[in-house]
Amino acid sequence: MWGFSNAALPGPLPSYFILSITAAMATDASAKVIDGKSVAKQIREEIAAEVSRMKDEIGVVPGLAVILVGDRKDSATYVRNKKKACESVGINSFEVHLPEDSSEQEVLNAISGFNDDPSVHGILVQLPLPSHMKEQNILNAVTIEKDVDGFHPLNIGRLAMRGREPLFVPCTPKGCIELLHRYGVEIKGKRAVVIGRSNIVGMPAALLLQREDATVSIVHSRTKNPEEITRQADIIISAVGQPNMVRGSWIKPGAVIIDVGINPVEDATSPRGYRLVGDICYEEACKIASAITPVPGGVGPMTIAMLLSNTLSAAKRAYNLQ
Amino acid sequence: MWGFSNAALPGPLPSYFILSITAAMATDASAKVIDGKSVAKQIREEIAAEVSRMKDEIGVVPGLAVILVGDRKDSATYVRNKKKACESVGINSFEVHLPEDSSEQEVLNAISGFNDDPSVHGILVQLPLPSHMKEQNILNAVTIEKDVDGFHPLNIGRLAMRGREPLFVPCTPKGCIELLHRYGVEIKGKRAVVIGRSNIVGMPAALLLQREDATVSIVHSRTKNPEEITRQADIIISAVGQPNMVRGSWIKPGAVIIDVGINPVEDATSPRGYRLVGDICYEEACKIASAITPVPGGVGPMTIAMLLSNTLSAAKRAYNLQ
Repeated sequence: MWGFSNAALPGPLPSYFILSITAAMATDASAKVIDGKSVAKQIREEIAAEVSRMKDEIGVVPGLAVILVGDRKDSATYVRNKKKACESVGINSFEVHLPEDSSEQEVLNAISGFNDDPSVHGILVQLPLPSHMKEQNILNAVTIEKDVDGFHPLNIGRLAMRGREPLFVPCTPKGCIELLHRYGVEIKGKRAVVIGRSNIVGMPAALLLQREDATVSIVHSRTKNPEEITRQADIIISAVGQPNMVRGSWIKPGAVIIDVGINPVEDATSPRGYRLVGDICYEEACKIASAITPVPGGVGPMTIAMLLSNTLSAAKRAYNLQ
Repeated sequence: MWGFSNAALPGPLPSYFILSITAAMATDASAKVIDGKSVAKQIREEIAAEVSRMKDEIGVVPGLAVILVGDRKDSATYVRNKKKACESVGINSFEVHLPEDSSEQEVLNAISGFNDDPSVHGILVQLPLPSHMKEQNILNAVTIEKDVDGFHPLNIGRLAMRGREPLFVPCTPKGCIELLHRYGVEIKGKRAVVIGRSNIVGMPAALLLQREDATVSIVHSRTKNPEEITRQADIIISAVGQPNMVRGSWIKPGAVIIDVGINPVEDATSPRGYRLVGDICYEEACKIASAITPVPGGVGPMTIAMLLSNTLSAAKRAYNLQ
């Protein structure tokens, strides 16, 4: 079983947390809820304090530039949320919105402008890009010092190598590990299984766990016995996008579960006609695991918090601040 | 059990191969010997043919530059072997030998010269460097197009990322996978365990297996139950440098074993007073595994063959040849 130090728990618990514990207890849940919303809130407060200190001490405000191409509604929502999050901690936000039929060169020009702009410390290109553009060309154009998404292969290479340090760690996997840290979950020497091997979550999450001395296995669509392997894990990070794929029988009693999946499933009782569930079958898992992130309210809020954290780090690095 | 297609076996078997099978049978061995020496010989013949074709077609001879700093005897031997291997396939070799007390700048100058030299297509800095030099600074100075060792973080990052292609794959792990390919060992969907997580072998070997759709686990010094995890593997690649660490009880019947370790152990009966053994206890493993590399004569000869292969690729790429 995992030991949780109360001292590592983030601040006072919000009221919905207590409600969720009560609801869970009614179904014999034993798992502690890893409250990403509350942790993210605390991290944003820490960042706001640092941003303020930076402004006072050297008169510099960190800046994040977001490039949005086209009119996808979901992308527009993500960009709006990032902008709001920046404002909430005092980070300046810059936005370029290009039409769907822009050329690759127009996007590259926007990136180049932000690369050269000293008031911009982080640059984020909202994905997916329109299909006529080559994602790789565009992401590679972001200067490594402002690659707050951490997707540049040079950052990934440094993440993989012992003795090297990436300038930035991709936000979602960084958020997963931060949750483990803030809840006092020991990683060193533990068996960890990462389900999914995407460039933006699964693969960097595995590299991060490996850096912290876990014994890591990566389970993916070609794995023949995912249930058997997952059941050996003390820590599970799942990022596949399959609703309720990981059943109770996949989980070792006492395991800690970080569920990155955010999958809409039909729900006639919901006003929107759907609700969001994770990759993990929560109602089964919460009876077996020792701790688990809910969906929503688990990893989701952490991703934006880590983006703000990376932007702050970029600005500090630009001015050699600790 | 693994199926081996005879069609995939390299050329006619040399006489010592048959001898070694006979000797093994006397101890109830069931494992096929994965004959790296023979495979490496065949690869070198293939490379020699390509080098010759390239010279005929466009008048270009691939060139490998090696930079040696200091007077370590083992390093001098490695450099001499690489030079001889180049000659044997018709690749030009260039060498700079700098004294032990050279400055970092002198090494960087040598690299810079080779970076700019169009007759040099691959650059290799023999490691280890003297302790007053920062390895990272020196390796990063090799232009990515000539990084035939594949150690540049940009290459490692591309190796880790789906949909990206590294310019070069590090020679020893590339040799391990090449042995599996040439012996017709299926990798996709198999459980693979890599023992050791070094930047030059274990980590890139895990990334390569992952790229080929194996389900990969990495076992290292902090792993609590290495025997239990290793016993689940269909394919084992070991690169830790501990003589005979992996015993028969660690091995699943029918597993395929690639032993990267080359460890000297005292042996009074040997004229040199020592003999070389791998990380795997060969005499136990050969009774349980379906195939295994011997030490010496397994992975060792493959490393230099892959260096030649990377140098040929670099030269072809420089002239846009297929």
